[in-house]
Amino acid sequence: MNTLSEYFAWYDETKEEFLRDLKQFLSFPSISTDPERKKDVLACANWVEQYAKDSGFKTEQWETIGHPTVYGEWLKAGSGKPTVLIYGHYDVQPADPLELWESPPFEPTLRDGNLFARGVSDNKGQIFYTLAALRSILKKTGSLPVNVKLCIEGEEESGSGGLAGILASRTEQLKADHLFVIDLIIHDPKVPAVCVGLRGITTLSVEFIGSAIDLHSGGHGGVAYNPNRAATEILSKFYDEFGKVAIPGFYDDVVPFPDDERKRVSLQLDPAMYKKLFGAEATGGEREVPPAERNTIRPALEINGFGGGYFGSGFKTVIPAKTTIKVSARTVPNQNPHKIQKLIADFIEANTPPGIRCSIELMDSGDGIRVRSDTKGVQSVARAMSEVLNAECRFVLEGGSIPIAAKLKEACGGDIALFGYGLPTDRWHAPNEHIALDRLRNGFVTVVRVLEILSEK
Amino acid sequence: MNTLSEYFAWYDETKEEFLRDLKQFLSFPSISTDPERKKDVLACANWVEQYAKDSGFKTEQWETIGHPTVYGEWLKAGSGKPTVLIYGHYDVQPADPLELWESPPFEPTLRDGNLFARGVSDNKGQIFYTLAALRSILKKTGSLPVNVKLCIEGEEESGSGGLAGILASRTEQLKADHLFVIDLIIHDPKVPAVCVGLRGITTLSVEFIGSAIDLHSGGHGGVAYNPNRAATEILSKFYDEFGKVAIPGFYDDVVPFPDDERKRVSLQLDPAMYKKLFGAEATGGEREVPPAERNTIRPALEINGFGGGYFGSGFKTVIPAKTTIKVSARTVPNQNPHKIQKLIADFIEANTPPGIRCSIELMDSGDGIRVRSDTKGVQSVARAMSEVLNAECRFVLEGGSIPIAAKLKEACGGDIALFGYGLPTDRWHAPNEHIALDRLRNGFVTVVRVLEILSEK
Repeated sequence: MNTLSEYFAWYDETKEEFLRDLKQFLSFPSISTDPERKKDVLACANWVEQYAKDSGFKTEQWETIGHPTVYGEWLKAGSGKPTVLIYGHYDVQPADPLELWESPPFEPTLRDGNLFARGVSDNKGQIFYTLAALRSILKKTGSLPVNVKLCIEGEEESGSGGLAGILASRTEQLKADHLFVIDLIIHDPKVPAVCVGLRGITTLSVEFIGSAIDLHSGGHGGVAYNPNRAATEILSKFYDEFGKVAIPGFYDDVVPFPDDERKRVSLQLDPAMYKKLFGAEATGGEREVPPAERNTIRPALEINGFGGGYFGSGFKTVIPAKTTIKVSARTVPNQNPHKIQKLIADFIEANTPPGIRCSIELMDSGDGIRVRSDTKGVQSVARAMSEVLNAECRFVLEGGSIPIAAKLKEACGGDIALFGYGLPTDRWHAPNEHIALDRLRNGFVTVVRVLEILSEK
Repeated sequence: MNTLSEYFAWYDETKEEFLRDLKQFLSFPSISTDPERKKDVLACANWVEQYAKDSGFKTEQWETIGHPTVYGEWLKAGSGKPTVLIYGHYDVQPADPLELWESPPFEPTLRDGNLFARGVSDNKGQIFYTLAALRSILKKTGSLPVNVKLCIEGEEESGSGGLAGILASRTEQLKADHLFVIDLIIHDPKVPAVCVGLRGITTLSVEFIGSAIDLHSGGHGGVAYNPNRAATEILSKFYDEFGKVAIPGFYDDVVPFPDDERKRVSLQLDPAMYKKLFGAEATGGEREVPPAERNTIRPALEINGFGGGYFGSGFKTVIPAKTTIKVSARTVPNQNPHKIQKLIADFIEANTPPGIRCSIELMDSGDGIRVRSDTKGVQSVARAMSEVLNAECRFVLEGGSIPIAAKLKEACGGDIALFGYGLPTDRWHAPNEHIALDRLRNGFVTVVRVLEILSEK
């Protein structure tokens, strides 16, 4: 067995090559939602496949209805060793608004120890330190300590529809003992954390229609039922006086968070720090539940969009013909997102007043995931991260959703560990996305170490 | 005295010239709110002034902080005859969305007896039949039966701020026995109507701020107070279960509509016809008040705009940093719009929940006007319109506001008659604005006849 400092040395001695290759990877504008970038997305997939192949993996591309998934395998550790399936994505979010970037989003730039580029933290930088670590192990030792499969998709930022559609036909290749989803964050660069839960999601788009044409609020004010008014009246009934969701049945299937996990899992939210980081008070949601639990072990309902009438500069005395709202719920284990979606739709319909017509579109839904912190995958990652950062690892729950995670876990049949070295302040999906170089280095060493740990019986 | 049919003949014999000149007038894109159209607005003012001057008026342009007002006078009827001050406006609303126009907004086009152009009904066509009638009388008879003053402004569509600012310095020129505001509508092309009341208005713009940056609804859903939620909760308290405005004090100063006027004034709203015309039910406002009274003798409160988060196609899981709303109230006589504005602002502030900051901008306000139907000005216009349409004239109340009307009435010192031949379906402020040629003709003859009536005795 090597020491951790040797693995850090592996990174340091290939650092120039590491940065050169990562910058190349980051320079592809692999924006999966933009049809005009289809060629760039494919070129990026080819680059990832080539990198894995050059490292020693047997690779292929899986065609989907959308962009391809890069699959790779190195199975020479043999049946006596576990198999790890590693998930990440090579696609990125759009880069607009471009004018807010301090350096061009697809020209990776180093400033003050941080690398700036679209996708550098979500997820290219993270999947790249993983691939680079695998390459280093193979180069240094001639083999990997465990069997490794790679599943690197090109549509995470647009719903993972392509990969989800082919999972059933790839179960043999996806079979693994452990699934690593390396697309997460820690909350403090010095404190290791493994994610043991993500919430599910369901989304709806609703139009409230009051008239055939926009009406003048002089002639019609007080007569026509303003759809803006209808929407505020309906949506205000979403919550009771304690901030709980008031839609009948919303909490019916929520099960209590297990007592033993509550002891192990870190549920912390410091309102002062929250205010400092986001300029927001932690006053939303269920008042009788501690803030740290409201966005983790409890479901939530949010009005993500509300647009009706004129709200630009100046004033327009209009009663809009229609008002559009977007609503989403985050669900917790045992809640069925589709059932919640229907409860919300029924509630909106039942509360729509006479004179207003509502038209509801049921949009995407996806399951959440909850993992016990004492599974082998989670414990192995936690041990590796603890050693790398020389601090005790936390087990945390995230409020967001990665719907493909639950589906992949089911397909592979093993346990799952969700982790990564992003930070909440890395500006994922926003201008000036970045990651600190030392976190890339820590990620690299963590991957080397966790495979070693898993191989130890 | 000539017969009415002779006056119709006056129109008919100059019809070609009338249409040619009107089309010229309509071809100026005199959009007062658009700074890029400043030259076009000025060119249009010059055109109006020249038209009045060529007709025999002594003219001048009054400079304002905005666009100029065209003033004209013909006072040779002498002190034994009354003086009529005629108000209208040569500016127009913006023409967007351009793609919805069937013919270009500034290329007047005849289709099926209707003339289509921006401003043709609001107000260029109406002020033009007035000017053309004055020209015809002067040409046919060599003089006008009464003294006439013209006050044609260029900022009605952007609040009349320029004209309002100079009224105090122009009281001598504005002095008149009767003020005609020829910028109104009838509700049936066969039924004459004079407007005896307009509501006042007050407007507010409010921002509800929840955080320094847009937040992801996964990580923050249930913790941050979503400003969309705050806004729906606050605005839903605007109305009680009977549709009455629930802001304390809102109705305090409303005085009952006089019984004698109730006998004379037509208060009608047929819900079936309303549905047919606007595709809307008459279910808004105060349920215990007949629909026809809700937008005329009763004040109203409307949410004109509500914009927060993402509401385009697709979905974005965002908790917006801020939500913007626009609110207006229409007031009735004895209500002070500024007092109502403060009541609304105080109510919003008092109901803003912890964690949300509200920033309120008090925007424009303007008084309404209520005229008794038995004044000489109103009765003379009613008689002229009755003769022209050969039907009994109604006295009606409009829900909209023309704040400059009350100010001008005060400046001139006389009575006021508000009338015109627009229709609610002329698409004022909307694409494909139009007016029927026979209504322009009726307007022309009405102006000729009413001046004659006013000169009798």
